[in-house]
Amino acid sequence: MSDCLFCDIAASKMSSDIVHKDDEVVAFRDINPQAPVHILVIPTKHIATANDLHAEDEQLVGKLYTVAKALAQKEGIAQDGYRLVMNCNKGAGQAVFHIHLHLLGGRKLTWPPG
Amino acid sequence: MSDCLFCDIAASKMSSDIVHKDDEVVAFRDINPQAPVHILVIPTKHIATANDLHAEDEQLVGKLYTVAKALAQKEGIAQDGYRLVMNCNKGAGQAVFHIHLHLLGGRKLTWPPG
Repeated sequence: MSDCLFCDIAASKMSSDIVHKDDEVVAFRDINPQAPVHILVIPTKHIATANDLHAEDEQLVGKLYTVAKALAQKEGIAQDGYRLVMNCNKGAGQAVFHIHLHLLGGRKLTWPPG
Repeated sequence: MSDCLFCDIAASKMSSDIVHKDDEVVAFRDINPQAPVHILVIPTKHIATANDLHAEDEQLVGKLYTVAKALAQKEGIAQDGYRLVMNCNKGAGQAVFHIHLHLLGGRKLTWPPG
């Protein structure tokens, strides 16, 4: 086990409800869902926060989006709509310090977003 | 003028409070801010929704993040934290059909995100 929960999930050392896995990106259902569909999409590469993103990570961050889009279609929420959220640091609610994109849908999403 | 408000802002045909501009990405303050810092980061390329993203757009989507990160630092919210949000379609609150990443910070952000 590493000291990062999401690295362990990506490496299958920790069980989770995986919905997508490839060499670069893993997606699994949030254990504390805030909507009928609530999936976390993460890079296998350990990047602690959005503050740690650099130009060389741009393609990888974009891939979190194309994977999320495909999952939204698979889950049947693509047309009604979905929200993609990334929190940076504790003031925004980041709890696991490995970047993750929340995919939320299946209900009306209100504004402001928290 | 085009029929897309954000294309017009990116092309400087419509005024806005621009905080970043380069060949690929423009950022400006939301006219209906939901937090002390509320900036929209958009690609100059017209992409209607997250459902319209393809593999060739991944680097560009990631660049929205590296620009947002730099703006968060400049605005003094990087350490306390910020939330990055993209809505897809009306059920998620998307109002302008040109993808935009909301950068929100400067206050406590609650959960769920809407």
